[in-house]
Amino acid sequence: MAGSPSRAAGRRLQLPLLCLFLQGATAVLFAVFVRYNHKTDAALWHRSNHSNADNEFYFRYPSFQDVHAMVFVGFGFLMVFLQRYGFSSVGFTFLLAAFALQWSTLVQGFLHSFHGGHIHVGVESMINADFCAGAVLISFGAVLGKTGPAQLLLMALLEVVLFGINEFVLLHLLGVRDAGGSMTIHTFGAYFGLVLSRVLYRPQLEKSKHRQGSVYHSDLFAMIGTIFLWIFWPSFNAALTALGAGQHRTALNTYYSLAASTLGTFALSALVGEDGRLDMVHIQNAALAGGVVVGTSSEMMLTPFGALTAGFLAGTVSTLGYKFFTPILESKFKVQDTCGVHNLHGMPGVLGALLGVLVAGLATHEAYGDGLESVFPLIAEGQRSATSQAMHQLFGLFVTLMFASVGGGLGGLLLKLPFLDSPPDSQCYEDQVHWQVPGEHEDKAQRPLRVEEADTQA
Amino acid sequence: MAGSPSRAAGRRLQLPLLCLFLQGATAVLFAVFVRYNHKTDAALWHRSNHSNADNEFYFRYPSFQDVHAMVFVGFGFLMVFLQRYGFSSVGFTFLLAAFALQWSTLVQGFLHSFHGGHIHVGVESMINADFCAGAVLISFGAVLGKTGPAQLLLMALLEVVLFGINEFVLLHLLGVRDAGGSMTIHTFGAYFGLVLSRVLYRPQLEKSKHRQGSVYHSDLFAMIGTIFLWIFWPSFNAALTALGAGQHRTALNTYYSLAASTLGTFALSALVGEDGRLDMVHIQNAALAGGVVVGTSSEMMLTPFGALTAGFLAGTVSTLGYKFFTPILESKFKVQDTCGVHNLHGMPGVLGALLGVLVAGLATHEAYGDGLESVFPLIAEGQRSATSQAMHQLFGLFVTLMFASVGGGLGGLLLKLPFLDSPPDSQCYEDQVHWQVPGEHEDKAQRPLRVEEADTQA
Amino acid sequence: MAGSPSRAAGRRLQLPLLCLFLQGATAVLFAVFVRYNHKTDAALWHRSNHSNADNEFYFRYPSFQDVHAMVFVGFGFLMVFLQRYGFSSVGFTFLLAAFALQWSTLVQGFLHSFHGGHIHVGVESMINADFCAGAVLISFGAVLGKTGPAQLLLMALLEVVLFGINEFVLLHLLGVRDAGGSMTIHTFGAYFGLVLSRVLYRPQLEKSKHRQGSVYHSDLFAMIGTIFLWIFWPSFNAALTALGAGQHRTALNTYYSLAASTLGTFALSALVGEDGRLDMVHIQNAALAGGVVVGTSSEMMLTPFGALTAGFLAGTVSTLGYKFFTPILESKFKVQDTCGVHNLHGMPGVLGALLGVLVAGLATHEAYGDGLESVFPLIAEGQRSATSQAMHQLFGLFVTLMFASVGGGLGGLLLKLPFLDSPPDSQCYEDQVHWQVPGEHEDKAQRPLRVEEADTQA
Repeated sequence: MAGSPSRAAGRRLQLPLLCLFLQGATAVLFAVFVRYNHKTDAALWHRSNHSNADNEFYFRYPSFQDVHAMVFVGFGFLMVFLQRYGFSSVGFTFLLAAFALQWSTLVQGFLHSFHGGHIHVGVESMINADFCAGAVLISFGAVLGKTGPAQLLLMALLEVVLFGINEFVLLHLLGVRDAGGSMTIHTFGAYFGLVLSRVLYRPQLEKSKHRQGSVYHSDLFAMIGTIFLWIFWPSFNAALTALGAGQHRTALNTYYSLAASTLGTFALSALVGEDGRLDMVHIQNAALAGGVVVGTSSEMMLTPFGALTAGFLAGTVSTLGYKFFTPILESKFKVQDTCGVHNLHGMPGVLGALLGVLVAGLATHEAYGDGLESVFPLIAEGQRSATSQAMHQLFGLFVTLMFASVGGGLGGLLLKLPFLDSPPDSQCYEDQVHWQVPGEHEDKAQRPLRVEEADTQA
Repeated sequence: MAGSPSRAAGRRLQLPLLCLFLQGATAVLFAVFVRYNHKTDAALWHRSNHSNADNEFYFRYPSFQDVHAMVFVGFGFLMVFLQRYGFSSVGFTFLLAAFALQWSTLVQGFLHSFHGGHIHVGVESMINADFCAGAVLISFGAVLGKTGPAQLLLMALLEVVLFGINEFVLLHLLGVRDAGGSMTIHTFGAYFGLVLSRVLYRPQLEKSKHRQGSVYHSDLFAMIGTIFLWIFWPSFNAALTALGAGQHRTALNTYYSLAASTLGTFALSALVGEDGRLDMVHIQNAALAGGVVVGTSSEMMLTPFGALTAGFLAGTVSTLGYKFFTPILESKFKVQDTCGVHNLHGMPGVLGALLGVLVAGLATHEAYGDGLESVFPLIAEGQRSATSQAMHQLFGLFVTLMFASVGGGLGGLLLKLPFLDSPPDSQCYEDQVHWQVPGEHEDKAQRPLRVEEADTQA
Repeated sequence: MAGSPSRAAGRRLQLPLLCLFLQGATAVLFAVFVRYNHKTDAALWHRSNHSNADNEFYFRYPSFQDVHAMVFVGFGFLMVFLQRYGFSSVGFTFLLAAFALQWSTLVQGFLHSFHGGHIHVGVESMINADFCAGAVLISFGAVLGKTGPAQLLLMALLEVVLFGINEFVLLHLLGVRDAGGSMTIHTFGAYFGLVLSRVLYRPQLEKSKHRQGSVYHSDLFAMIGTIFLWIFWPSFNAALTALGAGQHRTALNTYYSLAASTLGTFALSALVGEDGRLDMVHIQNAALAGGVVVGTSSEMMLTPFGALTAGFLAGTVSTLGYKFFTPILESKFKVQDTCGVHNLHGMPGVLGALLGVLVAGLATHEAYGDGLESVFPLIAEGQRSATSQAMHQLFGLFVTLMFASVGGGLGGLLLKLPFLDSPPDSQCYEDQVHWQVPGEHEDKAQRPLRVEEADTQA
């Protein structure tokens, strides 16, 4: 039984020991391998060589802060919509992201910036680590409420590695472009989580169904997440694009795409809603699909019209997904997708990858001019035609789906290890399994009121 | 009756069709007219010609993100104070702003940056569109709870056009200075909304009076909005001022003005409060009046002392407005002003315009030196005296009040079109008219507790 | 009695008069002394002399906005955890910070930038004033719920002066380095507040004990504060460090330290928690200790490994403090520390100062190269050895503890002045003493439902 003494003892030690082990191992690896890069190290950076204006720090750091806010505030609060799982949603977001930041600094460092026996870190490392944390949190959304914190840390341990390898294959081996991560972040994170959720399928989840909805104020907390994701998404997609017109264009395209996906979402939500009423789930999620769908193409010459169209399409597809596909996903495919990440990240991510195929295939020297070198360096250097780049982009999507599926499957098996603490079917979506939870309201009986206060209160 | 089948069918289609039509029309206009500007287009931007340091993107984009956060988080959550209208407040903010961003890109584009048959967009377009969305949301505050989403979209359709024309008349034809929009944003948005609210006057609104107040946690959500408006207002006023000392001075003046309006608000709120108690409505709103009142003059040589004085005055006037003038506005002038935009944006906006008249009239070549060219180019070029500039500023206020009043009147007539869905008098300030609303709390009876949980919970 | 007419009359006037007096006096001092600095004044700033790239504004302003968000959103909402003190927590944060910003502009201006009979203000003044406001809010955390707003303003009046003097002694007389304020902000603010709380010790506070805990949604509001503090802390520590590698390295170290303190906090919270359950108080607070502990050393060559280790240590010490030391602090030392500032700011601040001693003592010309001049100018100029710098750092901690203790004692005596309005022992942690508070929920009985709504709601 869940409440038996031995289980409690196991639970008591599982999370602490795993945290201590992971933090200890990470610290040792940092000690051996991680060093400041030449823009960060006091001795390597020379003011005379780098005027302030040249220091990339000032062009990347504000975007980093926006990405950082998006990952923690955005993902953290978006998942607070469940009525009794707010502590876990925001708390485990914090835990997972804090671990993923460190672990992906190591993984990505070994793959991308390992030279002279060391990993060299700087502002780009922080942005890349935040991106990876974003993918982990997307997967978290698929299994939200059905996994314990120790399970989640193990999921992150595996996912961060596969995220790093997949990204390396795409960006460095295949020469795929994916600045805002339609493939590397959204498609990967979503299908990793969905396959993992499939492996962890709970036929008896019905027992916790009454806790799976929202309450009035939990939906308002979730809107904090939505709005932070919405407002900072332009920075997210632009954070690592080429300085100058590249960042500028990426932000602008994302801004338009999000605006259109919002209108598309409201239209479809009212159209399919009971008695024409809007559904908060759609607004909280589908309105963001515009940011996902231009993740690959927003740095390209998508055109403002292209951004609007893509965003609108993503908003509608995502809303329809919530309404019609999520129930089928559970009943037919046995995938229990708590936050509907298939609708917000899965489908819009794949659409975004395909949009990238299309826009890359249409690239010409005329349209990009000197900018071709920063957007499609292999085409600019004559190593590839636009069609070839498009084919590589398409292959990148295929690779991502493979990594995500195999990884999610492995992750599911890992998380099924019998000694790992997992909430019983009747205790899913419930903070009390993991947290000391205060009552919903103060005990009014205990509070003595003065006369004039009693008057005011009435 | 509101719940009759035919009404429901009309409601079901009105919002979706309007969203689809507006988004479709906007997309077509974008396809025909909107192009990247030379700082955004891959082919037009040449790295060799523009060093990173010269790229205005880096000097405007962080301010844009602050403005963006202010508009969505700030206005969105500030209006969540109503006990049963949180979904609509934050949801319709989202819808209105997303539409206004696109539509005002077109309107402002035709007026300001139309050449060669195209509108050219970049980071300044995004900031300008966010400013316009701010004005629309101010008007929304005046009619909050009494209008349906289709009505609000039509309001935005009209208001964005008039906002654009008014701004064009002031800034380009009259040579008025209004960097932070005391006139173009706050005065315009407030009086447009108030006149519109007057036309939509509901003598039977009493029926929804019990829903017009706040509850404890809705007031805390509203404070999220207040704080985001407060902290990012310096960026709002400075977003489009001259690079260098101009932005610097504008931010500093706004910062001081807000600090003083906060102390003024606390002083007055306690002074006029029942038994000396503070009123959350005052703190949520009047403390922000300092940002409004220096909207015109913060880029000028207002002096830190001037900023403090102006902010303090605005905070006190605004608080007194909430306490004494709002009831009169409803009883005598038949204007039902849900959020009290007259107190936060109307009066402080007019005061801000008059302060701009005063500070412009005092401008001298000595006080501004080389900076005169960026603040008052027409005075610097000898085309105008300071007194003449002051007169133009005053005339700009007059023009704004005219545009806002006539526009609000037209808007009111438009929103009264009988086929438009509007909540009945007894269903105002109620989310359930527009949204599928979950219960306030989980059904505790349904939740089985394990023994040790029952202990913890007790 | 608290509710007697004469007391009410006194209360009615105390806060308004004090606000008006402080704002009036501040405005007069601003009029006489405060002027724009040469980067802010229209006439003193010459575009020709300062290219955009040189204007420090663009390198400091985004950090300022992050600090500003951290102080207001972060501290404001972190303290909302109390079930019936949310209005006061966020409202008085606003009031205190708004006053502290102005008052510390004057105090710090007289000490640091007074020349030619004037204080010269610019973006650095805003950052410095926000730092001081942060220290005041830390002290507020120690006395939260037990003091009235007039008392708090007097506390700020005194604390801002002592903060300024202490900072001046450390940074300018002793040549101590403390970029992120482990000593000047956290240690000072914490021990000032703790000693003050000691002087105000309430033996009968038991009477308000039932209101001292959180409720479910107040803990979620507090997590908004936590996350904003967490995400923007890198900017906080880096805001005034040397442009270039200095800011870069400081942000990176803080980022790693926070990630490690989060894992340490989760590990220890589960380890010491009842039945292995996590405690929200630990996550809300101790996870932030990583930002405090590197406040002094993050600009130094701490190394990423050093940052991880320091952060982890701070997270564990802070969590253990909440669990074991806070009760002792109250029972043995008669210090009632509402927010546990001793655990979040006190101990980690002292540890941070000691870490600064260590890292400064290890400084070599090899490790810092050209960067030595910006981090340890006195060592670079040969005026001091690394060991001597370390001794000065240690002496700085001692001085800070002295200023904080004596200041907190004086502050306690000041706040005990009998005519000052203070909540009675049975009315601590209660908003209704200071605010007009609405009910917790709408009156459901009053709300008429249409038939289909009743269906939806069920």
